Amino acid sequence: MKQRRDARISALLKVEAGRVDHWLEMCCIEAEGRFPQRLLASMRYSLLAGGKRLRPLLCLLGSRLFGGSDENVRPMALALEMLHTASLIHDDLPSMDNDDMRRGKATNHVVFGEGMALLAGDSLLVWSFQEIAEKLQRDDLPHHRVLKALAYFAAAVGPAGVCGGQVYDSDPLSQGEGLDFVRRIATDKTARLIQAALVCGALIAGAEGTPLASLERYGLHLGLTFQIVDDILDVIGDRGELGKSVGKDEAQGKKTFAALLGIEGARQAAEEETEKAVSALGLFGDEAGDLRDLALWLRDRSR
Amino acid sequence: MKQRRDARISALLKVEAGRVDHWLEMCCIEAEGRFPQRLLASMRYSLLAGGKRLRPLLCLLGSRLFGGSDENVRPMALALEMLHTASLIHDDLPSMDNDDMRRGKATNHVVFGEGMALLAGDSLLVWSFQEIAEKLQRDDLPHHRVLKALAYFAAAVGPAGVCGGQVYDSDPLSQGEGLDFVRRIATDKTARLIQAALVCGALIAGAEGTPLASLERYGLHLGLTFQIVDDILDVIGDRGELGKSVGKDEAQGKKTFAALLGIEGARQAAEEETEKAVSALGLFGDEAGDLRDLALWLRDRSR
Repeated sequence: MKQRRDARISALLKVEAGRVDHWLEMCCIEAEGRFPQRLLASMRYSLLAGGKRLRPLLCLLGSRLFGGSDENVRPMALALEMLHTASLIHDDLPSMDNDDMRRGKATNHVVFGEGMALLAGDSLLVWSFQEIAEKLQRDDLPHHRVLKALAYFAAAVGPAGVCGGQVYDSDPLSQGEGLDFVRRIATDKTARLIQAALVCGALIAGAEGTPLASLERYGLHLGLTFQIVDDILDVIGDRGELGKSVGKDEAQGKKTFAALLGIEGARQAAEEETEKAVSALGLFGDEAGDLRDLALWLRDRSR
Repeated sequence: MKQRRDARISALLKVEAGRVDHWLEMCCIEAEGRFPQRLLASMRYSLLAGGKRLRPLLCLLGSRLFGGSDENVRPMALALEMLHTASLIHDDLPSMDNDDMRRGKATNHVVFGEGMALLAGDSLLVWSFQEIAEKLQRDDLPHHRVLKALAYFAAAVGPAGVCGGQVYDSDPLSQGEGLDFVRRIATDKTARLIQAALVCGALIAGAEGTPLASLERYGLHLGLTFQIVDDILDVIGDRGELGKSVGKDEAQGKKTFAALLGIEGARQAAEEETEKAVSALGLFGDEAGDLRDLALWLRDRSR
């Protein structure tokens, strides 16, 4: 049962990641001659460095759950990966986490210099909004859905979302205490973008009301599961396998689930979040099989 | 004649800057409790540091030219100033221009640290898109106009616009030669956002076709005038009066109109750009009086 589930999710991730990689490659090819050459090289370096493409996949799954076509939601899916990549580039900068390895390669600023990495991040950030606004102006797609998705996406990544979470994660003068604060960081820094991936896909497909709210709840708990597992892997993971530095959280004194609850306590927390995620899918029945299995697969990464 | 014109434009700038300041202040008050406290303090510090509020003014004027209401276009006008402020914060960072004074105050990273300045810039950047997408979702405003304005705005500030211009301005490995290259930098780094301010205001007011294209042309030449004058003022200006460092372009070996053409040559270039800007307004007649006078006023700042 678990083996079949894992195999199915691994295959899904692999196939969709391949499609997303191809689409991102096409975007970069279209940009040739329009963006400064070195800037595009720097953006492409991080954008096409691999990665699970989890957020685009969630966007596609959120859309499919409401009968949406992959075609309609593609720019949104790519925007999520552009934005995510931008946040990674900026997080790795010397003035932030000062990290030298990411997705198994030297980080952007190590290769292209700090100034270029700053601008590559800014560029990917703006490009994500441009991709949505330009490509989804089509007449056969209700424009109010696109605006709603845009607003949701922006709220999730701005100062009350990813950017704010980075502040709580890194600014010594913006610290709180206890599990509530660790949840605050994880929610803003990580869960809100994962949630936005699902919700924005669903919004473009026309979702609203209770089903949309259920998916939103699933997204929050899936995102928290993801961050808890990430915290655990930073302690017990393998640098080569993860493709990024490990043990950095402890070295930097970061407030993580693993630091606060210990490995077993964090696993328990991941278990609880996964249960909440799966239970939020109740009203979708079998239609949400992939989303349910994905949550279980994510949880099991920490074992 | 010139005196009356200058007095009128100064009064217009002063009145509208006051309104924009008030609106931005309200945005920051609304954000209290939603954004991390220190992050909001850092964003507010730069956002409310004064400045001419030229881009919001141009957005309002672009909208009024096509009969649009200030109310409808206000989020777009504020977004332009948020984005502009974000670009200033990032430009001043040590890994970019390493500047310590801006608008008569210490730069953001000097006061709040490099990490916070990076995130304040990112946050203002995202907030600008959020402001447009959230506030302009209203049912009485055609959504396709908002999407068009969003796409135009994003294109102007992304890797083929402001971000790309910064690369040409600062990356030693992305340099070109001669007047064409100086125009390239000025167009991407400065003129495209000024142009976007006018065009996005006009788009939301429903502009299209030849009148829109004329305003777009005006915006390009106004933006180039602005940059040429800025280059001149960096050489002949007064630090106290300008509120920012002077003589930095030469010290950093920047490729500017003043460096390439000399002060008199640059003044001549500004004159030519101003003429092109004013001539693009021909079809609007007296309706475009403010825009015409603004171009002349901008040109005369370098005298």
